[in-house]
Amino acid sequence: MAVVVTDIKRTEKTIVDGFADFGVATVHEAQGRKGLLASYMRPIYRPIHAVGTAVTCEVAPGDNWMIHVAVEQCQAGDILVVTPTSACEDGYFGDLLATSLKARGVRGLIMDAGVRDAAVLTEMQFPVWSKAIYAQGTVKETLGNVNRPLVCAGALVYPGDVIVADDDGVVVLRRDEAASVLEKAQEREANEAGKRVQFERGELGLDIYKMRERLTQKGLKYVRQDEDR
Amino acid sequence: MAVVVTDIKRTEKTIVDGFADFGVATVHEAQGRKGLLASYMRPIYRPIHAVGTAVTCEVAPGDNWMIHVAVEQCQAGDILVVTPTSACEDGYFGDLLATSLKARGVRGLIMDAGVRDAAVLTEMQFPVWSKAIYAQGTVKETLGNVNRPLVCAGALVYPGDVIVADDDGVVVLRRDEAASVLEKAQEREANEAGKRVQFERGELGLDIYKMRERLTQKGLKYVRQDEDR
Amino acid sequence: MAVVVTDIKRTEKTIVDGFADFGVATVHEAQGRKGLLASYMRPIYRPIHAVGTAVTCEVAPGDNWMIHVAVEQCQAGDILVVTPTSACEDGYFGDLLATSLKARGVRGLIMDAGVRDAAVLTEMQFPVWSKAIYAQGTVKETLGNVNRPLVCAGALVYPGDVIVADDDGVVVLRRDEAASVLEKAQEREANEAGKRVQFERGELGLDIYKMRERLTQKGLKYVRQDEDR
Amino acid sequence: MAVVVTDIKRTEKTIVDGFADFGVATVHEAQGRKGLLASYMRPIYRPIHAVGTAVTCEVAPGDNWMIHVAVEQCQAGDILVVTPTSACEDGYFGDLLATSLKARGVRGLIMDAGVRDAAVLTEMQFPVWSKAIYAQGTVKETLGNVNRPLVCAGALVYPGDVIVADDDGVVVLRRDEAASVLEKAQEREANEAGKRVQFERGELGLDIYKMRERLTQKGLKYVRQDEDR
Amino acid sequence: MAVVVTDIKRTEKTIVDGFADFGVATVHEAQGRKGLLASYMRPIYRPIHAVGTAVTCEVAPGDNWMIHVAVEQCQAGDILVVTPTSACEDGYFGDLLATSLKARGVRGLIMDAGVRDAAVLTEMQFPVWSKAIYAQGTVKETLGNVNRPLVCAGALVYPGDVIVADDDGVVVLRRDEAASVLEKAQEREANEAGKRVQFERGELGLDIYKMRERLTQKGLKYVRQDEDR
Amino acid sequence: MAVVVTDIKRTEKTIVDGFADFGVATVHEAQGRKGLLASYMRPIYRPIHAVGTAVTCEVAPGDNWMIHVAVEQCQAGDILVVTPTSACEDGYFGDLLATSLKARGVRGLIMDAGVRDAAVLTEMQFPVWSKAIYAQGTVKETLGNVNRPLVCAGALVYPGDVIVADDDGVVVLRRDEAASVLEKAQEREANEAGKRVQFERGELGLDIYKMRERLTQKGLKYVRQDEDR
Repeated sequence: MAVVVTDIKRTEKTIVDGFADFGVATVHEAQGRKGLLASYMRPIYRPIHAVGTAVTCEVAPGDNWMIHVAVEQCQAGDILVVTPTSACEDGYFGDLLATSLKARGVRGLIMDAGVRDAAVLTEMQFPVWSKAIYAQGTVKETLGNVNRPLVCAGALVYPGDVIVADDDGVVVLRRDEAASVLEKAQEREANEAGKRVQFERGELGLDIYKMRERLTQKGLKYVRQDEDR
Repeated sequence: MAVVVTDIKRTEKTIVDGFADFGVATVHEAQGRKGLLASYMRPIYRPIHAVGTAVTCEVAPGDNWMIHVAVEQCQAGDILVVTPTSACEDGYFGDLLATSLKARGVRGLIMDAGVRDAAVLTEMQFPVWSKAIYAQGTVKETLGNVNRPLVCAGALVYPGDVIVADDDGVVVLRRDEAASVLEKAQEREANEAGKRVQFERGELGLDIYKMRERLTQKGLKYVRQDEDR
Repeated sequence: MAVVVTDIKRTEKTIVDGFADFGVATVHEAQGRKGLLASYMRPIYRPIHAVGTAVTCEVAPGDNWMIHVAVEQCQAGDILVVTPTSACEDGYFGDLLATSLKARGVRGLIMDAGVRDAAVLTEMQFPVWSKAIYAQGTVKETLGNVNRPLVCAGALVYPGDVIVADDDGVVVLRRDEAASVLEKAQEREANEAGKRVQFERGELGLDIYKMRERLTQKGLKYVRQDEDR
Repeated sequence: MAVVVTDIKRTEKTIVDGFADFGVATVHEAQGRKGLLASYMRPIYRPIHAVGTAVTCEVAPGDNWMIHVAVEQCQAGDILVVTPTSACEDGYFGDLLATSLKARGVRGLIMDAGVRDAAVLTEMQFPVWSKAIYAQGTVKETLGNVNRPLVCAGALVYPGDVIVADDDGVVVLRRDEAASVLEKAQEREANEAGKRVQFERGELGLDIYKMRERLTQKGLKYVRQDEDR
Repeated sequence: MAVVVTDIKRTEKTIVDGFADFGVATVHEAQGRKGLLASYMRPIYRPIHAVGTAVTCEVAPGDNWMIHVAVEQCQAGDILVVTPTSACEDGYFGDLLATSLKARGVRGLIMDAGVRDAAVLTEMQFPVWSKAIYAQGTVKETLGNVNRPLVCAGALVYPGDVIVADDDGVVVLRRDEAASVLEKAQEREANEAGKRVQFERGELGLDIYKMRERLTQKGLKYVRQDEDR
Repeated sequence: MAVVVTDIKRTEKTIVDGFADFGVATVHEAQGRKGLLASYMRPIYRPIHAVGTAVTCEVAPGDNWMIHVAVEQCQAGDILVVTPTSACEDGYFGDLLATSLKARGVRGLIMDAGVRDAAVLTEMQFPVWSKAIYAQGTVKETLGNVNRPLVCAGALVYPGDVIVADDDGVVVLRRDEAASVLEKAQEREANEAGKRVQFERGELGLDIYKMRERLTQKGLKYVRQDEDR
């Protein structure tokens, strides 16, 4: 038996939209270096950026039936997160489904499998991260759960979680931690802006971060090449 | 001993050119989801599209000699399809060979190995799908067959078959099936155009494809999140 | 104990800059098809090109501390070459380090691991070749050597060697061989320019390279398709 | 900050030990085809089998410090489940740690990274499933959580869950579902024993599972080879 | 629509059984280095050897229904060759199907996907070559062709072809070429037996194969280490 | 032009043979965690162990000619180390070459490509580490260097270096560092023997290595599960 969970609790919209200015690397650092999906999840075009709330969808290998079911559960501001029950690179998603999601105000797709119609998706500027771009079609035979927690590309995603995704990958934030992560991301960004100015005028990380003493303590030596070995 | 087959029968030009308006996903569906090359065959730039008739060429690992032989067998409207006799990522093909093919009116290259001079090929907009982009050079020592059937990236290709390739991959169509596949692709496209309008105005696949009843029969349940488990 | 070698001998600047007009495929051929890094080293944007002298940096897995140390050893005209002591796809390098390198006149980064902030690096047009683009952060705990010879993506690199990199990959040239390779690259390019004109007007490689006789000697046969088998 | 959770609730021992007679394929089917770790998790010797309760341990890339912390949390009947915070193939675990676990009655190791001393581990017949066998050593610098839920090879594991592992891979069962899965596994096995006898005497799956009618309904045709196409 | 082709023509049994004494490497050389399946096809135990006639079976990803259909088409002396229509590592085949095939005198399985119950298959000594060993189960929903030509792991296989498989991989021989390949394999083996004696008493390949002159012609030089460079 | 370097300096035999009692993990630690070949280099059987002095051999992709040349340079106590100039999985080496090497007292093969006749090599107990086991044959057309330094599976190997290899992989030691590494390996082993006894009687690594204080300083906390979060 498969279940579609309706009326899921979503992270508050003002918090979600607060991440619009931040990259994945910043957000990932801000939440203590966790929640990152595996590196094989790649954007289909560049540059790219999306933030939204997760609607989760489980599909059978080579079978995209449940995506149609999940679309109905999506609202404006959501990002659809799809995982097959076993590894698959088929093209589960193309321009018609993208048109359908876009019509509902959905902000992107995270697909732990393949997508197709990549040229049209790019032209539409509909943000997609996937494991593959591949024309291989799918059938509609097997049920799966919608809006139950699932593991996507190695990361646990709950429905309603925040998804932040860009050229560097995809990160997921728990609903009840998002506000505090947002705050830390803002602090981090402010701090980095100052650092960027220092780096631009030629200061070294060694000095900015005061690393020299600790390097010496750990035993780092400097030798001239003509004296080496 | 190696053989070059001359005077191959090609799919009729009007049929081949009929595929110019169709993507690989559509054509692959139209011929019953067969004939697709493996997902590791990727275009060297995007967007990209090519249709043509296959000239097939077998090469030794790290040896591109037979490509020069195959070029002479190519006519305007052809696509050159090259497979090494064992897996290899060397750069078999670069800007000089592309210039030579272009001068003959050849429409693209399908290379189950590596290519090089990718920047120039992109600038020339010469369509190439390959397993790798890699500068590694090749030698000219070993013979192979030209215009014999071969397996390229997991798909069987006969000389004279139709090749359709785009951002989503590469599909091959038998010479004697191409006309009927073209017809089905045209029907499919017409059908999809109507669907696209429905999706744009917010109708759901669940309703457009009348899936609700069958989902219920298979046992799909809807539950509110606060009642789940 | 870890060592930073200072005052390394670099290939002479006029020689290094002589490679500015050449692609990796040409240079790789000119030095006898050696010195190429593995094909998994890919540029983060295209088209791309860089030439410079190598500063080498060894890092621990998931630890980018030594990159900060290496930056100080970099001069205008250098390319930073980084290898982890065991395989890793973490994002060792982002926009702040790129800003720092750029401020010093460094011409690019060769990273046998991951980088992040890919969108910003692309916007800056700071040339980077890496194994992955990935937001995963790193720590600063473990020492490594700077400016000792190392193996990067399968190729041995000495500090001060010439690095040439483009869309096709990355090649390394020994300091004492660079002048002679440059000369051969120039000859090769001159030769290819002539060939390109011949190919453009439709001449065949079979004739330009006088291959027909040797093919016949090796046993190549031509048969009409209706007579084949 | 990192946390070690002590006094975890474990699945009841009599239930856990009930799985001793079952293979992973049977258990995976019995719980509705979920909970399987990715196929890259392979046993270091064959044949192999282990059942136990999960103690979970998070480690940094190239850093096995927390395994020593986790050992203390292990009891007789446990299986240690280790995941790095980013992908790594280093040899986190060798014969000394195996000796330590064995002394505590621990029944095996599930390592989403590499192990070493494979020859000794095999000789000891200490059951290990890992992503790699590799001599690369690790450091002891970075903290991680012990006995918090984690994702191992794509599957979510809670401390105290049941782990069943054999030549076919590794499956995880929730503590509160284990009893019911055990029951279904027993039924399934009883059912399969009967089937095995039928297959042994030459009966066909087509008849045993009464598939012929449904195949015909779906449109399967039988043709003689001389009449095909 | 899917088709099962019955009454296929098989290679003559005396020829097939003639390959029982030969390894795959010998047979592959004897037929001119063609017909080898890709290197990812690995035996589930070692040492291993099987020869037989191919029965071919096409399956959907994650769906093993057609294997049951194919079993009925198998006779004593056959080897079942299974390919999914898109890449998949699920465990399509386990001990019950092996029992069924064994009861019919089938000699092995070539599976371009995963198998399970590896421990039992090994104990039964039922020869299997596959892409993966994995417990992941499959459904029974989608039709596919049986005994039509297919591409398995990159090689084209016709029903009735000879399959020879051992520790080194799998090779396929066309029905009408098998007799002549057998003859060449016998000659090759006789020749190698003599060579083995020469190698055992310390003669060098350089002399046995008279390579010295050709090496010199190609430009090979010998230098003492103290004179090198 | 290609060169064979003769009369190479080898590490002293008594030092080399001193490593006979040590595993790769121990040796790798003893020399400061460097010199390890990549993890894809795997033994063709287990358990396995070999120590010897390197003879290095460069080959073209799909071409094993130079191995015959290298055999002549091998002496009793050597291990042959072979690297293709571009990535290749062909079966460069089989039972005849193994017979030839064995007749000369050579102790093993490190092949950064494929080998074949794996069943016979296993029966002979001739130790081989390779990237693949694959029947694909090779030609004899292209020259390469013998006994020049080369990069094998990511590690730099000089002729005459010590190779130590076992179930965990392959490590290389410089000729002039081998004696000092041997000493450290002996110390390490003595130290580990004592540790093993402590672990066997149930002592914890936390206490043996006195880790508790440093863990607390870094911030590790212990909490009961019922108080967690």
